[in-house]
Amino acid sequence: MAKEFMGNDFLLDNEPAVRMFEKAGKMPIFDWHCHLSPKEIFENAEPADIAGLWLGGDHYKWRAMRSCGVNEKYVTGDASGYEKFKAFAACMPSLIGNPMYHWCHLELRRYFDIYDILSEKTADGIWKKANEKIRSGGFTPRELIAKSNVTHLCTTDDPADSLEYHQLLAKENLPFKVMPAFRPDKALGIDLPSFPQWLADMEKRSGIEIDSFETLCSVLRERIEFFASLGCRASDHGFSYIPYETAEPDELNSIFKAVKAGGEPTTVQADKYKTALLRMLAAEYAKRGWVMELHIGPMRNNNRRMFEAIGPDTGYDSIDDQLVARKLSRFLDSLDYEGSLPRTVIFTLNPRDNYVFGSMLGNFQSDEAQSKIQFGSAWWFNDNIDGMREQMKALGNLGALGKFIGMVTDSRSFLSYPRHEYFRRIVCNLLGEFVENGQFPDDEELLADTACDIAYNNAVKYFSIS
Amino acid sequence: MAKEFMGNDFLLDNEPAVRMFEKAGKMPIFDWHCHLSPKEIFENAEPADIAGLWLGGDHYKWRAMRSCGVNEKYVTGDASGYEKFKAFAACMPSLIGNPMYHWCHLELRRYFDIYDILSEKTADGIWKKANEKIRSGGFTPRELIAKSNVTHLCTTDDPADSLEYHQLLAKENLPFKVMPAFRPDKALGIDLPSFPQWLADMEKRSGIEIDSFETLCSVLRERIEFFASLGCRASDHGFSYIPYETAEPDELNSIFKAVKAGGEPTTVQADKYKTALLRMLAAEYAKRGWVMELHIGPMRNNNRRMFEAIGPDTGYDSIDDQLVARKLSRFLDSLDYEGSLPRTVIFTLNPRDNYVFGSMLGNFQSDEAQSKIQFGSAWWFNDNIDGMREQMKALGNLGALGKFIGMVTDSRSFLSYPRHEYFRRIVCNLLGEFVENGQFPDDEELLADTACDIAYNNAVKYFSIS
Amino acid sequence: MAKEFMGNDFLLDNEPAVRMFEKAGKMPIFDWHCHLSPKEIFENAEPADIAGLWLGGDHYKWRAMRSCGVNEKYVTGDASGYEKFKAFAACMPSLIGNPMYHWCHLELRRYFDIYDILSEKTADGIWKKANEKIRSGGFTPRELIAKSNVTHLCTTDDPADSLEYHQLLAKENLPFKVMPAFRPDKALGIDLPSFPQWLADMEKRSGIEIDSFETLCSVLRERIEFFASLGCRASDHGFSYIPYETAEPDELNSIFKAVKAGGEPTTVQADKYKTALLRMLAAEYAKRGWVMELHIGPMRNNNRRMFEAIGPDTGYDSIDDQLVARKLSRFLDSLDYEGSLPRTVIFTLNPRDNYVFGSMLGNFQSDEAQSKIQFGSAWWFNDNIDGMREQMKALGNLGALGKFIGMVTDSRSFLSYPRHEYFRRIVCNLLGEFVENGQFPDDEELLADTACDIAYNNAVKYFSIS
Repeated sequence: MAKEFMGNDFLLDNEPAVRMFEKAGKMPIFDWHCHLSPKEIFENAEPADIAGLWLGGDHYKWRAMRSCGVNEKYVTGDASGYEKFKAFAACMPSLIGNPMYHWCHLELRRYFDIYDILSEKTADGIWKKANEKIRSGGFTPRELIAKSNVTHLCTTDDPADSLEYHQLLAKENLPFKVMPAFRPDKALGIDLPSFPQWLADMEKRSGIEIDSFETLCSVLRERIEFFASLGCRASDHGFSYIPYETAEPDELNSIFKAVKAGGEPTTVQADKYKTALLRMLAAEYAKRGWVMELHIGPMRNNNRRMFEAIGPDTGYDSIDDQLVARKLSRFLDSLDYEGSLPRTVIFTLNPRDNYVFGSMLGNFQSDEAQSKIQFGSAWWFNDNIDGMREQMKALGNLGALGKFIGMVTDSRSFLSYPRHEYFRRIVCNLLGEFVENGQFPDDEELLADTACDIAYNNAVKYFSIS
Repeated sequence: MAKEFMGNDFLLDNEPAVRMFEKAGKMPIFDWHCHLSPKEIFENAEPADIAGLWLGGDHYKWRAMRSCGVNEKYVTGDASGYEKFKAFAACMPSLIGNPMYHWCHLELRRYFDIYDILSEKTADGIWKKANEKIRSGGFTPRELIAKSNVTHLCTTDDPADSLEYHQLLAKENLPFKVMPAFRPDKALGIDLPSFPQWLADMEKRSGIEIDSFETLCSVLRERIEFFASLGCRASDHGFSYIPYETAEPDELNSIFKAVKAGGEPTTVQADKYKTALLRMLAAEYAKRGWVMELHIGPMRNNNRRMFEAIGPDTGYDSIDDQLVARKLSRFLDSLDYEGSLPRTVIFTLNPRDNYVFGSMLGNFQSDEAQSKIQFGSAWWFNDNIDGMREQMKALGNLGALGKFIGMVTDSRSFLSYPRHEYFRRIVCNLLGEFVENGQFPDDEELLADTACDIAYNNAVKYFSIS
Repeated sequence: MAKEFMGNDFLLDNEPAVRMFEKAGKMPIFDWHCHLSPKEIFENAEPADIAGLWLGGDHYKWRAMRSCGVNEKYVTGDASGYEKFKAFAACMPSLIGNPMYHWCHLELRRYFDIYDILSEKTADGIWKKANEKIRSGGFTPRELIAKSNVTHLCTTDDPADSLEYHQLLAKENLPFKVMPAFRPDKALGIDLPSFPQWLADMEKRSGIEIDSFETLCSVLRERIEFFASLGCRASDHGFSYIPYETAEPDELNSIFKAVKAGGEPTTVQADKYKTALLRMLAAEYAKRGWVMELHIGPMRNNNRRMFEAIGPDTGYDSIDDQLVARKLSRFLDSLDYEGSLPRTVIFTLNPRDNYVFGSMLGNFQSDEAQSKIQFGSAWWFNDNIDGMREQMKALGNLGALGKFIGMVTDSRSFLSYPRHEYFRRIVCNLLGEFVENGQFPDDEELLADTACDIAYNNAVKYFSIS
């Protein structure tokens, strides 16, 4: 009676869902936010083995291994790829209820044609089969992207980045389009240790001495123009909470200069700087029809010992719980009031705030776009069945679910596209439940259209890509 | 296999639920908190068309339209009723998962006998049929209320209100009772722009110059007495968070006088004033056996641009996220300690706090009433299947669900009574699930009684109406 | 079609769950956190009647009664046991959806062989049968513990406690092991009225005048050593929020001395003291391989009137909502950085924070243990079906559910062991759902092992008991 493990109807628990997924599952992918490397796409190297693909940089897997008590040697240490793969495989049975369990098996199935269940016992066999498959070809970045039916993808790029690989990729005849996305976190991070170096990089890149807040703004405006010339349609920002403190230009200059001279800003000073800079940037995005993405809620680098040993983005981040409603409201209102609110996607890492975010959207909608203010899909620690359902139910209850622009991979891995399949199954299942339960009419065409819109079409329209 | 769209067993997914709804669905309605206009009930005018009924003042629908990218002209602007209705209808298919989808179809069915699915395609037909039905009669406020099987309803009235329409209605021979409810938000809003005007209105109404905090209290006490003489049994208060700051009488007078003289209070000063005034009011409510309703959590008027254009209560509010546990506890304790805690209903707009509120109740129960402190039903942004279930599950887990006083419409529309049907279906379904799953005995009489108590009887007892 | 009320497959709604529970339901119990009295276990008295067992000290039941409007006379007052039992029985039908409903019937079934449904109508019969059963024997503390298949239990003991009953119990030939657990809440509670008395008790116990922070630390270290000599493996701490404020030794001494001299610390001073003391203690726990339990989130003694009348722990506590992420992170990091982070179990009373806590774990895991940092099971106000499911789903999504150390009774009653049965049914049902839905392979052996590990084996390993 139990359903087959990850069978054809995986996560599709009602008949309308199966029908919808028939259509939505076949839609192409527009991956409008990921961390893929344009350099790697350009260089297009073949991977050495599945350990490299899976365990080389995936902090989700690293955290899972540490949770199972695996020694760091087998996580990020000097153990061999084979040893790491074995150590990871041995953790799998403990990951019941973890999306990783599904992601791994989806990847084995979709890219490797391997239908075995990964565990310590099966690790050797899978290691052998997977690596043979890799050697038989088809695993370069470009091949994986193309095989995944991706039409467009947006990388994540610093304003100081040369975008040289984007320029090179633009000359290639690719079956998909690679676009830069503007991520000025380091520009905004006046209170981070990375700020002086970033400023130096930016001065070098621009050839201009950045000696005031105003100059910084004008240099960033030029970079925005440059990004736009390479097809950029999106910006992206990460905040543990939305800052909102207003300040006059003079004070902004003082803060900037003091920090450039080696000072440390207070929290309020940093928030004034960030608010002003973000408002300037938002106005630029609005002018160009760019989308502004706000990823709110991470608390980063919680473990100093490991930060000193292996640096950032290694699996030591978690969910912050600062209050967000009032400052987010004031920030969006300040833009709306000045007519400079771009299309905006707000993501929350703390699912406690789903209803705060879901209700915030409605304050700033307009006829510039269908759901101009979007509630970003469940992300990072929420990128699982429960998180996705809860985000979509909040959006459904509070907004227009049919206008949702859907999923992003947010990934560093060329194998992560099955997460779109995962998402689409969850979408179809939720929509199908409404029908199954008599809460929505069984209008086959409308349902299929809605599922395909969420899977692909809405995002294409929203980002105005072609 | 999918259930019929909104068929007889809509939301009733188990057999005990069907049985319970047989009884509970037929109970009359005591609408103990709504925003219906006593003037409109008295004047009892026939509506012009369905656009007037549906889109004239319903900010839920306005938000839904804006979320779908509809131009403001068709929302609150100068488009015709027909154009607005068409624009709204075109949004419906995108509102999958939104309670509006059900509310609209319930209203079409229960008041208009229209069973079509509303969409752009069907809009013209429904427009025609609905307006014919309206012209055939039965759509005046009194007729709609009577048809909805309402026995009592409490409006929402400012202390400065003359209650003239309540006096007039008292002389009519109505098949239902209309009672005022005391809502002194403007009296408490010393930090709002509306305060000076309200004070002037109050002075005019009372014929007394209000020159001190004490005078204000005594004027309000008189108004409470006047409200009581017209059958009032309930007060109502809205707060983004519960203030709790204590102060001596001298300081309260200073704050009051400074504000009356044109000053602006600090947040702490405003909170001191609010705390003292609310405590005075609560003691008055307690003396009379009135119910104190506390609606906690809205963040209002987030969009300045639209506030300046079309004013408050137009769909630009959302959910605040201030911390509430400690001040709410101190506030209720301060009343309980002085023996002046009335029957109190606490509503949270932020569902994150369901368990904070649900556990708070238990600190202040007594034998004055069955569940003297009530957890208000899921409200506004939570007035949907998920929100209602979550609120009732929290109440069930933490308190005595069988003593719950149930649903309020909180509505400005005479067509919103099917939300009681919606709520009752959800109640019966939840109770029935417990039985279906072997978590509660299948005691048919007890279940029917419990459902009917939550639907109607508990509220009647709690408010001591007859 | 409805399942039998609390039948054999109670809470087991799928076939894999039934299979798992076959095994996991028979596992012994390691009750690693409870509030049972070692004195009562030693003295091993027979109870007088079911009212004494049920209503003598159970604030869950008291709250339920007050929620139903029962006069305090029948709750904690001078009514007879029979009257109290009747009053409680009359509340039962209103407790639909409350875990109390299941706990009571489980206890009646497992200890009394009574399968009647408790209500006002059946109260007399059950009163008679239950008391006959009690008189027929088997209801002393030791008999109840043994009958419940408990192998080990950890009580909760103050550092100033003599542990005399633990010493006496160690000499008895018991079929289960009773261990002390170190709960220094009063030592940390420098801002509580209980502090001076506790300090005096501690001086008396140790024979040392505690005149500095350093002396306090050394006295506590000695007590830790003494607790260890009696088999202690665990500490326990309750906080409404995690304090984290750093201070130099001089300042700590000043704070300590000022309070000892009768002063009141500021919040920041108290937090400095608590942080330093807790870090010292944690380092000691780490050295000995003890487990540190952190119970975070209660807001205690909310009702002053009742506190003055009947004291603490009488049902007037509820859930606090202070922000926790940053200070919890800093606290754990400070220990990890110094190599003195013990095995730690973090419990949250506010379910809003399930994902904050669940993601925090991953920041501090290591190979010292399988899931060295554990997410404590749903506790107190969350100790119900929904709370447990949500906590396990969060853990599953974010960590390694297979390594979870499971349930604690946290109870003062010798009849509360069926809560382990309750928990195990919920665990098996959740794991079984994953299989039933095709989200995990139907590997019978692995599933049974996982369920038994969560029920018992993981905790035994984690606490290194034998």
